[in-house]
Amino acid sequence: MYTGTLFIISAPSGAGKSSLIRAYLQQNNSYPAKVSISHTTREPRPGEQHGEHYYFVNSKQFESLIDKQAFVEYAQVFDHYYGTSIAEIDQSLLKGVNVFLDIDWQGAQQVRKKMPFAKSIFILPPSLPELENRLIKRGQDSQSVIQKRMQKAKAEISHYNEYDYIIINDDFDISLKALSSIITAASLEQPKQAMIHQPLFADLLSPN
Amino acid sequence: MYTGTLFIISAPSGAGKSSLIRAYLQQNNSYPAKVSISHTTREPRPGEQHGEHYYFVNSKQFESLIDKQAFVEYAQVFDHYYGTSIAEIDQSLLKGVNVFLDIDWQGAQQVRKKMPFAKSIFILPPSLPELENRLIKRGQDSQSVIQKRMQKAKAEISHYNEYDYIIINDDFDISLKALSSIITAASLEQPKQAMIHQPLFADLLSPN
Repeated sequence: MYTGTLFIISAPSGAGKSSLIRAYLQQNNSYPAKVSISHTTREPRPGEQHGEHYYFVNSKQFESLIDKQAFVEYAQVFDHYYGTSIAEIDQSLLKGVNVFLDIDWQGAQQVRKKMPFAKSIFILPPSLPELENRLIKRGQDSQSVIQKRMQKAKAEISHYNEYDYIIINDDFDISLKALSSIITAASLEQPKQAMIHQPLFADLLSPN
Repeated sequence: MYTGTLFIISAPSGAGKSSLIRAYLQQNNSYPAKVSISHTTREPRPGEQHGEHYYFVNSKQFESLIDKQAFVEYAQVFDHYYGTSIAEIDQSLLKGVNVFLDIDWQGAQQVRKKMPFAKSIFILPPSLPELENRLIKRGQDSQSVIQKRMQKAKAEISHYNEYDYIIINDDFDISLKALSSIITAASLEQPKQAMIHQPLFADLLSPN
């Protein structure tokens, strides 16, 4: 049985998902957690390490993994494959590590089919103008790219009702507490606690 | 639809349930919460107020409420009835108030049948000797009453696996955070958030 929990985390670009996940991993948590490392066929960017940022593989290797049904979800974006291997998730969950899948609604749909026990979280901006503000402030994109991101954001947001939990990221600290609460609550589910604290339960239930 | 959540909270005597609930209600919470007020046929003790500690009714009134199926759970303990009225819960949950039912495993079983959406939390001591220590320290009971409470505790604990969540109350502050996390996570469930923040969702999903 898994004592870790699988979390799908989706959000429109600019909602603050990456900052929230980073802040969560940096704080003091009762249970270990990690972001799942994806496989990809794209080239490593400067500073990216195999096994740390991605597992870098070639197309032939990736397609062979598809054939072996090794992925819980994968997608082809432009010329490159991206996917999450089942082995990557499975080993962590068995060890009691909570695993975050940072994927979009399409990936989320694939994961829910194969791993229905996954809990999914959707992070929303407090308004569309605020989302646009954040994309502008980030200073990464031209005005036309920002308009495309806004259109994509609205498409992403339309899938909010496929998710178990919603976090409206207005105040960062409140949102971080919200994310932490969802993760902590999942670890407190009775079957997981009974597994994690087996000796205590054996003791409490002993006839004498 | 209910925007509040119904929580069943059970624990063996001495596990710290009442202190945890009290501390939760005294802290700053994002959503309002209250302990459900029970009906009872026993006499008020000095200082107990009708509508604050209990709804004090006579046996005839209580039995008439039973006939009207007004209770989500009730029990007869020695000569007195105790019960939780559906109206008491219903009105709070509709207003977005989280409601705590401080009841034992038998009451919990009745509530789950009638209100399967209730989330149930079981609070455990870190060990049986520690539970006994706490009962002794409390100084309320004679040695023979403590032995009876310990037997009753073991019977109560044997129902732990009927509950959704387990909190092992070793460190009080960690347990309070655990309780808060379960309650916060329930408020973040997507259907509740969609209901609470209807104008935001309408805005985010508007075509232009």
